[in-house]
Amino acid sequence: MSLNPNHYAVFKKILIANRGEIALRIIRTCKEMGIKTVAVYSTADKDSLHVRFADEAVCIGPAPSRDSYLNIPRIIAAAEITNADAIHPGYGFLSENAEFSQICDEYGIKFIGASPEMIAKMGDKATAKATMKAAGVPTIPGSEGLLDSIEQGLKIANEMGYPVILKATAGGGGRGMRIVKEDKEFKKAWDDAKMESGAAFGNDGLYLEKFVEEPRHIEIQIIGDSSGKACHLSERDCSIQRRHQKLVEETPSPFITDELREAMGKAAIKGAEAIGYEGAGTIEFLVDKNRNFYFMEMNTRIQVEHPITEEVTDFDLIKEQIKVAAGEKISGQNYFPKLFAMECRINAEDPANGFRPSPGKIQNLHIPGGRGVRVDSHVYAGYVIPPNYDSMIAKLIVSGQSREEVIVRMKRALEEFVIDGIKTTIPFHIALLENEEFKAGNFTTKFLEDFDFSVIKK
Amino acid sequence: MSLNPNHYAVFKKILIANRGEIALRIIRTCKEMGIKTVAVYSTADKDSLHVRFADEAVCIGPAPSRDSYLNIPRIIAAAEITNADAIHPGYGFLSENAEFSQICDEYGIKFIGASPEMIAKMGDKATAKATMKAAGVPTIPGSEGLLDSIEQGLKIANEMGYPVILKATAGGGGRGMRIVKEDKEFKKAWDDAKMESGAAFGNDGLYLEKFVEEPRHIEIQIIGDSSGKACHLSERDCSIQRRHQKLVEETPSPFITDELREAMGKAAIKGAEAIGYEGAGTIEFLVDKNRNFYFMEMNTRIQVEHPITEEVTDFDLIKEQIKVAAGEKISGQNYFPKLFAMECRINAEDPANGFRPSPGKIQNLHIPGGRGVRVDSHVYAGYVIPPNYDSMIAKLIVSGQSREEVIVRMKRALEEFVIDGIKTTIPFHIALLENEEFKAGNFTTKFLEDFDFSVIKK
Repeated sequence: MSLNPNHYAVFKKILIANRGEIALRIIRTCKEMGIKTVAVYSTADKDSLHVRFADEAVCIGPAPSRDSYLNIPRIIAAAEITNADAIHPGYGFLSENAEFSQICDEYGIKFIGASPEMIAKMGDKATAKATMKAAGVPTIPGSEGLLDSIEQGLKIANEMGYPVILKATAGGGGRGMRIVKEDKEFKKAWDDAKMESGAAFGNDGLYLEKFVEEPRHIEIQIIGDSSGKACHLSERDCSIQRRHQKLVEETPSPFITDELREAMGKAAIKGAEAIGYEGAGTIEFLVDKNRNFYFMEMNTRIQVEHPITEEVTDFDLIKEQIKVAAGEKISGQNYFPKLFAMECRINAEDPANGFRPSPGKIQNLHIPGGRGVRVDSHVYAGYVIPPNYDSMIAKLIVSGQSREEVIVRMKRALEEFVIDGIKTTIPFHIALLENEEFKAGNFTTKFLEDFDFSVIKK
Repeated sequence: MSLNPNHYAVFKKILIANRGEIALRIIRTCKEMGIKTVAVYSTADKDSLHVRFADEAVCIGPAPSRDSYLNIPRIIAAAEITNADAIHPGYGFLSENAEFSQICDEYGIKFIGASPEMIAKMGDKATAKATMKAAGVPTIPGSEGLLDSIEQGLKIANEMGYPVILKATAGGGGRGMRIVKEDKEFKKAWDDAKMESGAAFGNDGLYLEKFVEEPRHIEIQIIGDSSGKACHLSERDCSIQRRHQKLVEETPSPFITDELREAMGKAAIKGAEAIGYEGAGTIEFLVDKNRNFYFMEMNTRIQVEHPITEEVTDFDLIKEQIKVAAGEKISGQNYFPKLFAMECRINAEDPANGFRPSPGKIQNLHIPGGRGVRVDSHVYAGYVIPPNYDSMIAKLIVSGQSREEVIVRMKRALEEFVIDGIKTTIPFHIALLENEEFKAGNFTTKFLEDFDFSVIKK
């Protein structure tokens, strides 16, 4: 591969190993960079826009992801057949799969993402935390690695002070986790967490952490290059979550101060540079009620919510990923944006009925427009949302001069949005934007646990 | 009307005396400002989105504009019935009608636009030119009024320098006009122009102007307030025109230098302040090949192409109009944007057949999305474009970090745009964006006269 620093299109053709809005998002940037694209798709996705808008499209199997979007041999074969010289994995699916990154390398196909070593290191929570701690990034106080015994756990809990949380080292999605508020609750929590994690993950190793009170999920977008340099593009507040699924993200966070922003940015860069991180990545922090921040995890890929950062910084993050993958160097400048942006995830779910999935045919579609409104979506009128995948059908991204302006603009855009034939999360978002606590910026990751979903208009 | 400087919504309810995308555009900003809206509509427009999205809607008559959108008594009655305290006229229709502005004043309804005096003064070309000249704004050199003789004409031509143009005072449409490049051509041109204008208009009076070579249409957006202060928001290059109809606008102009931008901005402010202009306005200039600029006319209203200025300055120009009308003061800061933006007017016309109007039903509609793409439109799938009005059905506005980025992004957005059932100008825009001269920024207002329309894909 010959590098030409004045020309981004060192890649002639990129295969996108993903579907839905992110596949379309990547195709858009490739088109703007003059790079040809290959879509891969499952039979369930044959009518998806990413298939229509790519230069070439290869069917890689039936709907179950293991037979298509997670099937490495089929994806590599599609890249070989179409002579793609790079693969963009998007988010989810194989984007943080070290083996896939490795195999791409072996086949001489540039993986536009992290190296196998980096993915492995950041994919294992304990290793990631130890690595960041060693680099001087604040981490949640806790046990050094796995706990050997209840007694060791109790001793550490008393040193840190309650509340604490027991976590499964192989865990995820809240499974194998227990909050402990005092000594006498410890044994039962230990037994329960061990059993649950053993059953769920085949690994019952537990570790202990200080429990973060009134936490906010605030993440820093970073970009690193092959020279080992990294910069940050400020934060995203992703505290509005339901069962660990983000629903709304915004930047800047209404909670953090300029001083904290600078400190978190520096910490994120320190972490990224310590591991020589290349490409776009996100360092997720928990911020407690006293504005202490703790490393949570690193995502070695593009995030769903990346557009809000784009709207306030004027970066195209997919383009940055491609440029860095092509060997270009970053400017190294950090960004502290003056604009505001918010994203609402429009899911095919019924928010008035426990967010039950609502796949089916979109009968009518009217997309909002006008100033400060961006829509990233792969759907169209007549499109049938397959039941096999993530329920997100559109991202509505709004930018403005102030948080207040963004909120009123988002509300008017949501009210313009018409998606007939299925239920969507639009009524939830409208209810959220009318909530006084949300409008005041008073929310933590627990916000939706206490939210009155009955106010949602059906 | 009580003014509260901390709250824009001094107007409780604004009636929008317009239709189509600009009516919707104004409704959007009113919603974001918490101001109620009243739509007026002709029977031909009953299914238009501006009717659906306004808080109230009043039918003001049948399709012919004189019976509805140009019918002052009916519009005033609609405002009275709905208790609207202000009227926004949009562009076209009554937006530059001094009588309408006057009548609104008399009825105690705030006209969100220029005063009757200002409209009258700028609406008459000779008065506008004389006013601007007196204020020190460069105007096209020429004879003071009509020429008495060939000898007087020759004398003035030699003072200004060739080429010059002889124009019929009663003229229009190019008749009675002659370009003269040297003394020896003068007599024949004089005789021909006199004969032609006498025959055509019954008036053979001629005047003389400096002929502007390789002209570009470049306009400066200004905002003035009631204190008499004005500022400018840089320029828009609107040289891509067909029969004096703008088709594509961009900012910044690829032709003008920083020095010229500053000089034109200063001249525009000088002109606006000389007449005490209040609100958003545009001063249009012709710029010749040597970068001399000359006042052409002033538009005392919002322009179709205002969004490109919004995209690069972060102003909402409709909000600025409403704020100034409510008595707020502007900051007075001039803007020299660092971003780039372009607008393509999507018209229901067949560009492969002389831009013949193509009204009818939109069968399928797919709106482009993603980063840097804004769409302002009042149409939807199933909408029937009435044959009665302007053929513009959407404005596609794209912004980016460079002119090159804007061009590639516009092209990919145009390629995503699907409007089935009618012909549109989309294929023309794609052909234009592929034209090497256009891409290089080499174009004048004459560009489309020599354009090869046969390259347009049908």
